[in-house]
Amino acid sequence: MSATAESVQISRDPQFQALLERWQARIERELAARLPLATARPTRLHEALRYSALGSGKRVRPVLVYATANALGIPEASVDGVACAVELIHAYSLVHDDLPAMDDDDLRRGRPTCHKAYDEATAILVGDALQVLAFETLASGSGLPSDAAVRLELVRLLAIASGTGGMAGGQALDLAAVGRRLSLAEVEEMHERKTGALIHASVMMAAACAERRSEAAVQALDEFARAIGLAFQIQDDLLDIEGDATLLGKATGADRAHDKATYPSSVGVETARRHMHELHARALAALALLGSRAAPLASVSDWLVLRKH
Amino acid sequence: MSATAESVQISRDPQFQALLERWQARIERELAARLPLATARPTRLHEALRYSALGSGKRVRPVLVYATANALGIPEASVDGVACAVELIHAYSLVHDDLPAMDDDDLRRGRPTCHKAYDEATAILVGDALQVLAFETLASGSGLPSDAAVRLELVRLLAIASGTGGMAGGQALDLAAVGRRLSLAEVEEMHERKTGALIHASVMMAAACAERRSEAAVQALDEFARAIGLAFQIQDDLLDIEGDATLLGKATGADRAHDKATYPSSVGVETARRHMHELHARALAALALLGSRAAPLASVSDWLVLRKH
Repeated sequence: MSATAESVQISRDPQFQALLERWQARIERELAARLPLATARPTRLHEALRYSALGSGKRVRPVLVYATANALGIPEASVDGVACAVELIHAYSLVHDDLPAMDDDDLRRGRPTCHKAYDEATAILVGDALQVLAFETLASGSGLPSDAAVRLELVRLLAIASGTGGMAGGQALDLAAVGRRLSLAEVEEMHERKTGALIHASVMMAAACAERRSEAAVQALDEFARAIGLAFQIQDDLLDIEGDATLLGKATGADRAHDKATYPSSVGVETARRHMHELHARALAALALLGSRAAPLASVSDWLVLRKH
Repeated sequence: MSATAESVQISRDPQFQALLERWQARIERELAARLPLATARPTRLHEALRYSALGSGKRVRPVLVYATANALGIPEASVDGVACAVELIHAYSLVHDDLPAMDDDDLRRGRPTCHKAYDEATAILVGDALQVLAFETLASGSGLPSDAAVRLELVRLLAIASGTGGMAGGQALDLAAVGRRLSLAEVEEMHERKTGALIHASVMMAAACAERRSEAAVQALDEFARAIGLAFQIQDDLLDIEGDATLLGKATGADRAHDKATYPSSVGVETARRHMHELHARALAALALLGSRAAPLASVSDWLVLRKH
């Protein structure tokens, strides 16, 4: 019998909701300080950059960065740059994925998508500029360890997670799958690259900022990050089928309308849900190795899997 | 009276043509080794990446990297990664600039543009993936100084040159200028960002790889790179008006057809040509400070300004 989330002995952070809101406010502030001012030329591009990266979003990846730092005793001020970099990559991917030639979405987080609010050319440039700002942040921004070797390792981890072995490759597999019925292995490969790689990188980049790390802790976090990344994406697929469009801030049923390959379309809703809960349990079991300091990370896991939007 | 290229006392490399061809072959080989194999999944994306980055192009930016390294006594094997990174950024910018929502070009270097040979979604992803591969190359590729601080500085220089203060910002200014008549200062600002920033970065990144550098040499290279970057772009604008479409591998008259702001459209063909030659002379005068070792860089300058395609 496989484990259930309830069977794993790990405490949660009773103050998690307050912690979550503090981290969400922190990343908003940090991003706002790093994005170019909308008054600087080219003003329209800069305005569109801020429109696309600020003011909304669950901030899943920065929250994972802060929670991992918390578990490892790393000051938040040493990972602000990491939190910004992963969110900038995520924001760029949303802007490009929404383009007419890609998923052709009009609504994102309850607001018009970038190419709807501005225009297609601007949206292409916004994605390009958000991506490069992520790397500029790691190379020259504040809120990071000062050690150049650590920063270079952060650049490497982020680049690998974003490239054709990671996010961009996952999006290509997603596009190639439209109208086809994928095997479970193919859906998992696509999800692991498209969403999993950056979620995984968020955890591992935060861990790379620790002054001292045990191999065992890094391995536990690696396992945690893989499991929670896939669980998160399955819940995304499930919410697209069963979620509330008002809560989600975007239309539901989009995957089916676009004839997208998803986890539930491959194995059915019930099997998908069961597998998500197994992954949730596996993530919590990995965290248990870290002891009580992992309580906020355990709370983040619950939040990601039990969320309604 | 302003200087002319002929009045500057600086020798050229008599073997330049052979050197140029050797560098062009070298960058082709280095890029081919760093790009993902077309047999690896997602195969279509990888094939499109290789289509867009290999087999054609003057390789202006890598040639500047190798020539600068040559002038400073840096082994070519220490800047191969820099040469690849700047060319990957350039290749990405071409793929995105050619998109229907941007310049909508069908032909590039005598071949169908990426979105014509593949499709728009693939071309968007190709640009995204080429950009991130540039940063992955600096963080984890071979052919670079081993010092992490130097590599991090390379990431910083490349990110700044590619972002909204550089190339992406220049493209936004270019798009915003369509149908407007720009002042000379506005055209120069656009050119400095859109093409100048990456040309400048090619020289300065190579210089950052030197084990020992004199401040005077760095300043001379900085002045050289600014002058030659603008001269190069003016020649591009002039070739679009007066060049041979067969030699160029793309349609001429595209700037006028798109109602683009260019240097000649702002000040006239004759003034543009005169200013280009003044910038050429200024670039050579800056090189003169480096002495005879700058001969290949002087030859590169001639090549960029006197080229017919």
